[in-house]
Amino acid sequence: MQQHPISLELACSALPELWSPRVVGQVNDQYIKVARVHGEFPWHAHTHEDEMFFVLRGALTIGRSAADGGPVTLQSGQFFVVPRGIRHNTSAAEETWIALIETVSTEHTGGEPTPLTRSIEDQLLPIG
Amino acid sequence: MQQHPISLELACSALPELWSPRVVGQVNDQYIKVARVHGEFPWHAHTHEDEMFFVLRGALTIGRSAADGGPVTLQSGQFFVVPRGIRHNTSAAEETWIALIETVSTEHTGGEPTPLTRSIEDQLLPIG
Repeated sequence: MQQHPISLELACSALPELWSPRVVGQVNDQYIKVARVHGEFPWHAHTHEDEMFFVLRGALTIGRSAADGGPVTLQSGQFFVVPRGIRHNTSAAEETWIALIETVSTEHTGGEPTPLTRSIEDQLLPIG
Repeated sequence: MQQHPISLELACSALPELWSPRVVGQVNDQYIKVARVHGEFPWHAHTHEDEMFFVLRGALTIGRSAADGGPVTLQSGQFFVVPRGIRHNTSAAEETWIALIETVSTEHTGGEPTPLTRSIEDQLLPIG
């Protein structure tokens, strides 16, 4: 159980590497995660799970196919939910800090291994 | 399905009244809500659902019994999860803007009607 309020930005500031989300909390069957991102992350989809992205600092572009609506760019303070089954990637032209809400079972790249894929166990490691 | 990024603060700024959460998105079985609060909200508990509070602007105090850890105060950018079954209230000395993550079935005051209780149908009304 969470004992104290947690600052999402402070948690981000302590993340040791880019593209490596860490779990900072849980609400019902969802993990609350933070990540620092910069550059581009591989395309993938999550068959059974929606994914919420919330930008704390910087700007995040979520790529989708033209048929799925095309790319959207989130500025600081904005959120966007990628529904289950929608193929997407993420990119950030500058270092960007984000929070994510994902079902606890969600695999990082949806069962499509990439060099950047992190296991759920890795994401549960303490920050710092 | 969400078509465009949504600013949580912009959504808050359009809320017509205090203590009346509105749904602005859904991720898996959880609603994403925003609320403007000021003053004190009645004590209640949710038997089966955790509730995540995130402060966008201002400061929110979540009251808990001493046995449950006592009150915690969240500043802007901080979150706190109240686990299912924990009796709590909320208060804000100044107007405070918050986001919440709650299971879609979560009742506002956990089945304990109060003058401030809003139905899920009310919370699903468009803002503004």
